[in-house]
Amino acid sequence: MPPESFRYETVRQNVLDQIESGALRPGDKVPSLRRLAERMRVSLSTVALAYGQLEGEGIIEARPKSGFFVRAAATALPPPTARPSAATAPESLDRASLIRKVLDTMARQDILPLGVARTAEDLLPLAPLNRILAQVLREEGNLAGYYAPVQGFEPLRRQIVLRALESGAESSVGETIVTSGAMEALHIALRCVTRAGDAVVIASPTYYCFLQLLENLGLRVIEIPSRPGEGVRPADVARVAERFRVAACVLTPNFNNPDGALTPDEAKAEIVDILSARNIPLIEDDIYGDMHYGPTRPRCCKAFDRKGLVLTCSSFSKTIAPGYRVGWLLPGRFLDRAVEIKGTTSVASASPTQMAVAEYLRSGCYHKHLKRLRPAVKAHMEHMHELVGRFFPPGTRATRPTGGSVMWIELPGGADGAQFMHRALARGIGVAPGVLFSSRGSFRGFIRVGCCVPRGPQLSAAVQTLGGIAGELEDCVGDSPATGPFGNPVGPEDA
Amino acid sequence: MPPESFRYETVRQNVLDQIESGALRPGDKVPSLRRLAERMRVSLSTVALAYGQLEGEGIIEARPKSGFFVRAAATALPPPTARPSAATAPESLDRASLIRKVLDTMARQDILPLGVARTAEDLLPLAPLNRILAQVLREEGNLAGYYAPVQGFEPLRRQIVLRALESGAESSVGETIVTSGAMEALHIALRCVTRAGDAVVIASPTYYCFLQLLENLGLRVIEIPSRPGEGVRPADVARVAERFRVAACVLTPNFNNPDGALTPDEAKAEIVDILSARNIPLIEDDIYGDMHYGPTRPRCCKAFDRKGLVLTCSSFSKTIAPGYRVGWLLPGRFLDRAVEIKGTTSVASASPTQMAVAEYLRSGCYHKHLKRLRPAVKAHMEHMHELVGRFFPPGTRATRPTGGSVMWIELPGGADGAQFMHRALARGIGVAPGVLFSSRGSFRGFIRVGCCVPRGPQLSAAVQTLGGIAGELEDCVGDSPATGPFGNPVGPEDA
Repeated sequence: MPPESFRYETVRQNVLDQIESGALRPGDKVPSLRRLAERMRVSLSTVALAYGQLEGEGIIEARPKSGFFVRAAATALPPPTARPSAATAPESLDRASLIRKVLDTMARQDILPLGVARTAEDLLPLAPLNRILAQVLREEGNLAGYYAPVQGFEPLRRQIVLRALESGAESSVGETIVTSGAMEALHIALRCVTRAGDAVVIASPTYYCFLQLLENLGLRVIEIPSRPGEGVRPADVARVAERFRVAACVLTPNFNNPDGALTPDEAKAEIVDILSARNIPLIEDDIYGDMHYGPTRPRCCKAFDRKGLVLTCSSFSKTIAPGYRVGWLLPGRFLDRAVEIKGTTSVASASPTQMAVAEYLRSGCYHKHLKRLRPAVKAHMEHMHELVGRFFPPGTRATRPTGGSVMWIELPGGADGAQFMHRALARGIGVAPGVLFSSRGSFRGFIRVGCCVPRGPQLSAAVQTLGGIAGELEDCVGDSPATGPFGNPVGPEDA
Repeated sequence: MPPESFRYETVRQNVLDQIESGALRPGDKVPSLRRLAERMRVSLSTVALAYGQLEGEGIIEARPKSGFFVRAAATALPPPTARPSAATAPESLDRASLIRKVLDTMARQDILPLGVARTAEDLLPLAPLNRILAQVLREEGNLAGYYAPVQGFEPLRRQIVLRALESGAESSVGETIVTSGAMEALHIALRCVTRAGDAVVIASPTYYCFLQLLENLGLRVIEIPSRPGEGVRPADVARVAERFRVAACVLTPNFNNPDGALTPDEAKAEIVDILSARNIPLIEDDIYGDMHYGPTRPRCCKAFDRKGLVLTCSSFSKTIAPGYRVGWLLPGRFLDRAVEIKGTTSVASASPTQMAVAEYLRSGCYHKHLKRLRPAVKAHMEHMHELVGRFFPPGTRATRPTGGSVMWIELPGGADGAQFMHRALARGIGVAPGVLFSSRGSFRGFIRVGCCVPRGPQLSAAVQTLGGIAGELEDCVGDSPATGPFGNPVGPEDA
């Protein structure tokens, strides 16, 4: 690398580092050309080159007679449209292989995993948790090596009951089932209340693994909109419950994946009432409930359940250790069937990890950990918002959720999210294409980005690369695809 | 306790201890009254009292002019009948609650767990395995806390591929899926190849959790006999495959649970051919394959599979650590669907336990461990056979398997296995009632007993108690229930 470009790159990186570290914030004035040249012992022209580059990248902006300022682009990102683009022919979508591509990146070291809703390792209490597990093995090794009860290790269930109280859900040790993550909980819950051929109401967009599970179980899907700013509207639930024969409703009321939408507690209560009146079970995924940015933990739907018709699924995979696979199910009145299904699908969850999590909770570590985790995740989210605002082309729209760890981005100019994913993977970055988040292949123009990855130059460079891809794809698209209304549920015609 | 009865009990226990320890074997002469009286410094009449008691219990027998001998009763137990008793009205059977009762004893410390097919803790390498897990946490803690790939930790899959070779099955890392025990493997396998309403062929008797899983999945069951001495006959498979529209066949060819039947390798090859010719998938459970008593490891059906139609399920739950929940599935041509189902039912299995088992296998520990485990389990089985022969009433019949850890006992005089279980539980002993092992409620007169529990006075006393219960129930039964033929498959009429 020739010396000149090397020096100019050093200056550019210096400014980026200051922005990353928070020393320079959106709207701040960056040092004048002269001052930085003196400080870094480089020529004025070197700094000018670097600033020119940063300006071209949209990171800083020149203001007449005032100098250069860090762009406040992040705050300028508008929220995405609530309405998905029109459904396209399902045969054109190889959902399974797309999902596999996304999930495969989970364990790959060579891919920056923005495609999965993970929590950065450095935010998880892996070291203390592993220490507790090692202690459990020393002190109760035989218990750890042996089968746990089908419903789970009792001291863990006791802690889960206490956790559930924080979200307003009342349960008991006997009514709680430990699962291998929230996904197993959802699987058991669906098997409890549905049979193949049944119709299930879900929010759209929704987490693609949920859709795949519904499909695998032979269930038909009725989609109702999740709206970034307000979540699921009770009126939408009422409408489909009246019109269709619905076996169950599956919602993520707290920070829906992917759009981060929070359904207000009052709306939850209304939805529970609407469904209860028709004896329709409600399966809720509360996996992000503990990851609220605001001061108050949002309630879960079970808090408003008077008939035992709400089945609550959750886990510690986002807050403590995904690899421990410890989740739970509060199955309400479907307890017996849920226990039977748990017993015949995995017998019991792994004992050592159950015991370690129980002790981690009992000792009060979890409570303290959450206090640190929430603002940290929030900071990651804000940082990502800023980066996307800075590097993505104008016309990009993105959510700004109040909890959880994913951002839902609408690409400008009708660019295709699946194409986006392929190009990003080729450059070592994972993203999840929007088309996966609806059973009808809607949201083709969206991507979901995991925000909880370590900050730093690697992340900035990655988002810059992604912004570049968005630009490339925008240029490729002749005209945007037709968009259609979302007024009617995209459900089965024969329901 | 008065001194006399105390002394007599001490003598009795002394003889029992010698039998337990193997110092006195079946057929051995026990010390003469005089000799034992001198050695134990008690009166002749005390020894006589003790010997009288032991004779009454069937533990020793007097031979004219020769003295007392340890009864060789164990070898005299005839094998149980292959034909189950006739099916009874299914409404009289609350299978789910019976199963729950059996499974609940798994984690109960106050019940001697003869009701579950467990391996005694002292035979499992829990200490070295836990040490390896602690080491994994120290060295690769972040990896252990994080998601494993959906298909499982790759070094573990590599070891599983090597293990499978021992049973004649050829697989590859990419074609192997780590599961949470063999039960999850079976669940995934069934979901791969069947839909609700399909008919599945199983051996009868078969492990009750398999039956419960089939029922939960809405599958119809066609039973063909498992015969204690010979396993499943290819002709029986051919007959049902011709007569019914069969979606899959589920077999445990190596040491079927509960009757321990081993289907010979030649018969396996024939069965695979019969099913392959009709493109019927064969799901095999090989969980006991590594627990053969003889010198040669029986092959698994996959060894004879040329079309990728055999799905092999297994786990380390019986040989290493049930609480680690590490099993696997070799799904043959159904790989893609199996991975999809695994991803949407538990995402991935727990990482720390996968990593520990991988290292345990890689280091060669497993191989050495099996060499010790097999003869130990065999000795447990022989000991149980001896105890049952000694303490159960005449007319009792029991299997003498060549692998695995459970014994299938036919109670004398038409006694009911479920009643037997309730009485046994009331006295702190778990057993599994035979009625659970058939979808039609056959085998009411049977119980299954786990043999792999620590030997010693507690076990002897427990089996003595069980023998007493068998006697009580025999006395209660006026006449034995009618038994019916088993010539026709007990399948759905409308299949």
